[in-house]
Amino acid sequence: MPTYKAPLDDIRFLLNDVHDVGQLALLPGFEEATPEMIDQVLEGGAKMCEEVLFPINQSGDAEGVHLVNGEVRTPAGFKDAYTEYAAGGWTGVSADTMYGGMGLPKLVGFVMEEMLCSANLSFSMYPGLSHGAYSALVSHGTDELKDRFLPKLVDGTWGGTMCLTEAHAGTDLGIITTKAIPAGDGAYQITGQKIFISAGDHDLTENIVHLVLAKLPDAPSGSKGISMFLVPKYLPTDEGKPGTKNGVTCGSIEHKMGIKASATCVLNFDNATGWLVGEQHKGMRAMFVMMNGARLAVGMQGLGLSEVAYQNALAYAKDRLQGRSLTGAKNPSGPADPIIVHADVRKGLLRIKAFNEGMRSLAYWVGIRIDLEHGHPDAAKREEAEDLVALMTPVLKAFLTDKGFDNANIALQTLGGHGYIKEYGIEQYVRDARIAQIYEGTNAVQALDLVGRKLPMEGGRLVRRFFETVKADIDLASTNDAVEEFAKPLGASLYQLQKATMLLAERAFANPDEAGAAATEYLHLMGFVAVGWQWLRMATVASAQLAAGKGDARFLQAKIKTARFYFARLLPEAATLLAAIQSGCAPIMAMTVDEF
Amino acid sequence: MPTYKAPLDDIRFLLNDVHDVGQLALLPGFEEATPEMIDQVLEGGAKMCEEVLFPINQSGDAEGVHLVNGEVRTPAGFKDAYTEYAAGGWTGVSADTMYGGMGLPKLVGFVMEEMLCSANLSFSMYPGLSHGAYSALVSHGTDELKDRFLPKLVDGTWGGTMCLTEAHAGTDLGIITTKAIPAGDGAYQITGQKIFISAGDHDLTENIVHLVLAKLPDAPSGSKGISMFLVPKYLPTDEGKPGTKNGVTCGSIEHKMGIKASATCVLNFDNATGWLVGEQHKGMRAMFVMMNGARLAVGMQGLGLSEVAYQNALAYAKDRLQGRSLTGAKNPSGPADPIIVHADVRKGLLRIKAFNEGMRSLAYWVGIRIDLEHGHPDAAKREEAEDLVALMTPVLKAFLTDKGFDNANIALQTLGGHGYIKEYGIEQYVRDARIAQIYEGTNAVQALDLVGRKLPMEGGRLVRRFFETVKADIDLASTNDAVEEFAKPLGASLYQLQKATMLLAERAFANPDEAGAAATEYLHLMGFVAVGWQWLRMATVASAQLAAGKGDARFLQAKIKTARFYFARLLPEAATLLAAIQSGCAPIMAMTVDEF
Repeated sequence: MPTYKAPLDDIRFLLNDVHDVGQLALLPGFEEATPEMIDQVLEGGAKMCEEVLFPINQSGDAEGVHLVNGEVRTPAGFKDAYTEYAAGGWTGVSADTMYGGMGLPKLVGFVMEEMLCSANLSFSMYPGLSHGAYSALVSHGTDELKDRFLPKLVDGTWGGTMCLTEAHAGTDLGIITTKAIPAGDGAYQITGQKIFISAGDHDLTENIVHLVLAKLPDAPSGSKGISMFLVPKYLPTDEGKPGTKNGVTCGSIEHKMGIKASATCVLNFDNATGWLVGEQHKGMRAMFVMMNGARLAVGMQGLGLSEVAYQNALAYAKDRLQGRSLTGAKNPSGPADPIIVHADVRKGLLRIKAFNEGMRSLAYWVGIRIDLEHGHPDAAKREEAEDLVALMTPVLKAFLTDKGFDNANIALQTLGGHGYIKEYGIEQYVRDARIAQIYEGTNAVQALDLVGRKLPMEGGRLVRRFFETVKADIDLASTNDAVEEFAKPLGASLYQLQKATMLLAERAFANPDEAGAAATEYLHLMGFVAVGWQWLRMATVASAQLAAGKGDARFLQAKIKTARFYFARLLPEAATLLAAIQSGCAPIMAMTVDEF
Repeated sequence: MPTYKAPLDDIRFLLNDVHDVGQLALLPGFEEATPEMIDQVLEGGAKMCEEVLFPINQSGDAEGVHLVNGEVRTPAGFKDAYTEYAAGGWTGVSADTMYGGMGLPKLVGFVMEEMLCSANLSFSMYPGLSHGAYSALVSHGTDELKDRFLPKLVDGTWGGTMCLTEAHAGTDLGIITTKAIPAGDGAYQITGQKIFISAGDHDLTENIVHLVLAKLPDAPSGSKGISMFLVPKYLPTDEGKPGTKNGVTCGSIEHKMGIKASATCVLNFDNATGWLVGEQHKGMRAMFVMMNGARLAVGMQGLGLSEVAYQNALAYAKDRLQGRSLTGAKNPSGPADPIIVHADVRKGLLRIKAFNEGMRSLAYWVGIRIDLEHGHPDAAKREEAEDLVALMTPVLKAFLTDKGFDNANIALQTLGGHGYIKEYGIEQYVRDARIAQIYEGTNAVQALDLVGRKLPMEGGRLVRRFFETVKADIDLASTNDAVEEFAKPLGASLYQLQKATMLLAERAFANPDEAGAAATEYLHLMGFVAVGWQWLRMATVASAQLAAGKGDARFLQAKIKTARFYFARLLPEAATLLAAIQSGCAPIMAMTVDEF
């Protein structure tokens, strides 16, 4: 019943016209990643998402995963779809060619992520987790481990997981109790229980490579005593086949609000054989390689669900005849007008559209910087990119997933009662979107990362770079008649963000609870400014193309009108966020626990 | 796993100390409805909600309803619970004693509604719909119909429904096609299909009384041609037993996001025998009797779910040990601090608490006016109450359900991953709360009712009464040292609301789309002001009691601190709503349909 078309027009406009994706082909090793090549890959990816993954999304939700004789069975069609996915090379889009990957920029995988999640979030979790394991291993594994496991992860024959959480230790990994005992032969025996392990068990691959956080016998307490181990479900034979079953079993699977086709497992490790990844007690470093990539990917989940929800709400709003326009019938020959005539319906749709396209643009700006950070020949450029990616990672994760969930709900509301029933598919997007605000660090944790770590880092250099970048575009726009109307409101919001930044720097020094009380609103304020900035950039490009008679006028006009809506209707919400930050922590901390 | 205790302390404070529930016993016919009597009834109701209905809420969600051989089977335990519910007289709390009801003020049923929905929203739908049918019938039915059907609805032997929606006609009832043909004997033959019929079929009662909107052969087109008919599932025998099966069948049931234990039916009427309720072509009048009551009840659903979600999030926040307070360990002997030490967690909890208690107070203020509207001996007082109830009905429905859903989500977030799995019960509250924003008129329809009908009504008298009432309390507070701090921010927000009202009056006259573009934000602005006003009232009472050494100091201090939080952190959101209203409809209407 629901439909999905990958937004390739918008993707092309952003990559080619707004963000100059061509700059990536100038980086060493990416010479073949020309805009044309990237476009071709994305077109193929879009087709697979639309035709292979989307058709099994609703059925996957209805069927869910099942634990049968201790092994997880994925829903009908998932295994075939995964085989096709892996055969197409999608498990290794941005993986190193040395291990069999396509060797494309990370941006390409990042752009794909949105489409995958629009099409089938549950499905995307399986290769997504494998990619996380790949990332940690490629940067922190020994050559022996890499040679043995990476080709399998890259070609998709084997899957991967991240085993962090324990029943009593979620956000607070310092208190995990899973133990690793040296076995004397360079290997370790891992024992403990992990919960909430996505893709912890399934029938899509012949083996699963778990990356497990555990503590060595001599480990210091807290998060500085955590090590990472590679623990395969089956110990590989010398021929690289799954051999003896290792001491890891799936104890149960969770019954969840959504992502029902994604297996969330309790994994029991009982003297399971594993190998150290990275240094002893330094597992958090390798973990954060996975985690940072995963946080960005989760941001794209929010965008992906918001996009598919929008498409279906829009189709319904154009199709559903109900009532008449307040300014006179727009469809006089029909029994009623399509509900898109109503200001309230349009307002909801425009809100989603403005956030989606602005967030997508912001994500691509960050995505390009992920590749610059690793591959630019100039160290200063690498540092700049690294700063901006580090600053924006929590913003993308939390802002895109918070707005993604809100947007999915607005889309649901557009359908009225039909949005609440399963048939139309939208309620699934709401349920699926809800998890993205929680996993890979709750959005409150993202906000604390932004305010408590990223702002003070390097004496405030990260956020200053961001301010300067935005300011430069505002200055340019101030002298450009076509977009001058947007320069002033964006400037005002940037000023609010700068004010909030100063305030936090002053107050949080004296009382850390001030940071905690303001963090979420601060992150959202930055999100509003960053998305507004992207709208300024998009409107600048669109107006220039219109003036030059280039491109699709309807598409470009829509960009400018959507920018206008964003600045008139959405960006003013930044003022409330500043007011909340200014109100401080006293009214929050004054309550005793008993008074709640 | 989840728990629920009816908030009787708060209910008592509001009824007795803030809203003077004693005034109801002064109304003719309510002499026995003293505060003590009402308290006793509510205490019994609370016990039933906690001990009978809440324990089958989670299991009801898991099992859902099933259609077996054309009849709906409710989940295990529902039939027994319903029998107990009816035996306790709860199906007739505020029903007329003439038909076997308890004859209590409507307020009592209204207060009960919150507890019922905290305990088990799905269950509450069955007696809720019966009560809607009772209301329409008691005010518009013939004596013969009343004598025949009301005693059965009141004692709960029979259930009731409201059959409005058709597949192509939801908000727009004017285009329904269900037909009613006079049968010549005073009865009618009803034919057509209705969808989304809550409690449309079930096994809780021996018969079901459907109130069906249909069109007579000579009906004018549109909503002025709709009549209402009573169509029982079984035609009653002369002895008042269910006799011959009537021509109404349940074609299917919907599979929904939530309220899974509430049957949502497609009902097929095939020459079913029915009787006219009210006048020919004037069915909308009788329908609105049901509808207005139902809208208020749906508002209480939002509050009820928000309350039970809060209780469970609070329990988790006090219990869950994770990380340390940013200002130093608060539980140094434990492995970590309870998460309620964190500003972000407290902020979420306080937000829910402040809305819940403020909305509850607002609801009771309206609830008392429902009884004054019908029973006050002074016509001027009746008119005043009627004005305020009419104005506040859409606000209560939409504001309480929008905030109810948001709050349930904040509660879920407090639990992190544990909020997303079914075990802890919170995700069910989110799914259940989502429908309340949709049914009985979507919240956008409520906003249009407020802006398009209630504001201009009687030359603006309704809203002026509200402004005067709030203003009087602000003036009083300005000279009261204990609460003077709240007078200024409330006054500022009232001014914003008045400004928005003026603006709308001017602009919407010239362009009705201005009303459509602003309606939702206007309703929310009024909600924020109304809830703020209630916080002023509660803080005034609490500070006076504290000064007099009366009451529970912890409870009263919490009231004042929560008021302070509301005014510092939440009420400033009103400014953004005004800004959105001021931005006008142009940026919304400028997009062509193709540009979306």
